[in-house]
Amino acid sequence: MRVMGVDPGLTRCGVGAVEGRPGAPLQLVAVGVVRTGADEELGTRLVGIEAGIEQWLDDVRPDAVAVERVFSQHNVRTVMGTAQAAGIAVLCATRRGLPVALHTPSEVKAAITGSGTADKKQIGAMVTRLLRLTEMPKPADAADALALAICHVWRGGAQHRLAEALARATRKDARS
Amino acid sequence: MRVMGVDPGLTRCGVGAVEGRPGAPLQLVAVGVVRTGADEELGTRLVGIEAGIEQWLDDVRPDAVAVERVFSQHNVRTVMGTAQAAGIAVLCATRRGLPVALHTPSEVKAAITGSGTADKKQIGAMVTRLLRLTEMPKPADAADALALAICHVWRGGAQHRLAEALARATRKDARS
Repeated sequence: MRVMGVDPGLTRCGVGAVEGRPGAPLQLVAVGVVRTGADEELGTRLVGIEAGIEQWLDDVRPDAVAVERVFSQHNVRTVMGTAQAAGIAVLCATRRGLPVALHTPSEVKAAITGSGTADKKQIGAMVTRLLRLTEMPKPADAADALALAICHVWRGGAQHRLAEALARATRKDARS
Repeated sequence: MRVMGVDPGLTRCGVGAVEGRPGAPLQLVAVGVVRTGADEELGTRLVGIEAGIEQWLDDVRPDAVAVERVFSQHNVRTVMGTAQAAGIAVLCATRRGLPVALHTPSEVKAAITGSGTADKKQIGAMVTRLLRLTEMPKPADAADALALAICHVWRGGAQHRLAEALARATRKDARS
């Protein structure tokens, strides 16, 4: 399964894709950042984010897209732009019929490091180790996008195994 | 000048267009609401908002679009969806090369009623009077979208007159 993660932001929108399935080594597909200028008008920036995400979807061709769920407790000064960038990522993926999942920052941290309160450095270190990279992806937004994608592969896998277990239990019930 | 106002929201996105210029009677062009289902997934809702706004832009063909500026002090439960709907309206207008203005709720209230703290009913009453309608546009989101459009016609006019006055003053300076 190929998952593209998006760590939304107007100035730096992290994008990272991995290929993998639960219980097997993960592969890095690509990682980078979509940037827009802080001095540009909001509309120009949103059009830039849309074009950047579309280009990434064309290049990476993911099976699913994972976007960070934005809360109003985030940095108040930038939260509206962050929410709007996230909305555009969700819009672009849905227009292509791709499944979209929203994961909270603490879900991602817990999935990658075992702790829902891990810091950026710890996330970066685990992403580097899990993908067997020679150095930490930079900036932090790029590493966070990979963490989202990895979280989705693993959570998706857990949900898949749960669904399988339920299906097996139901078949057993039907036979007994 | 034809202005389309957008009062953003995921469940009800108010849209209203007026034709006018400062100092002349305003004309209603069209008013309504783009709705999406509260039980639909976020992506489906955002695609629905985009399709609705595009249809309105096709039908109304405005010269400018005015969108309510969303603050994080808004209703916390819905503010992220409101910000995302606003972002999509700004995106759609900018893709067409239309000028986009963001006005705060208090700027709109002050422009329409003279008071930045006017309530919904007062806004609705003034929109009804200014457009010489026989009844108040409903729901409130539709009336608010018209108020945004009217605010933009008047503020745009004031800014235009200010720019003209500055240009005259500059010419005078240049002559003296």
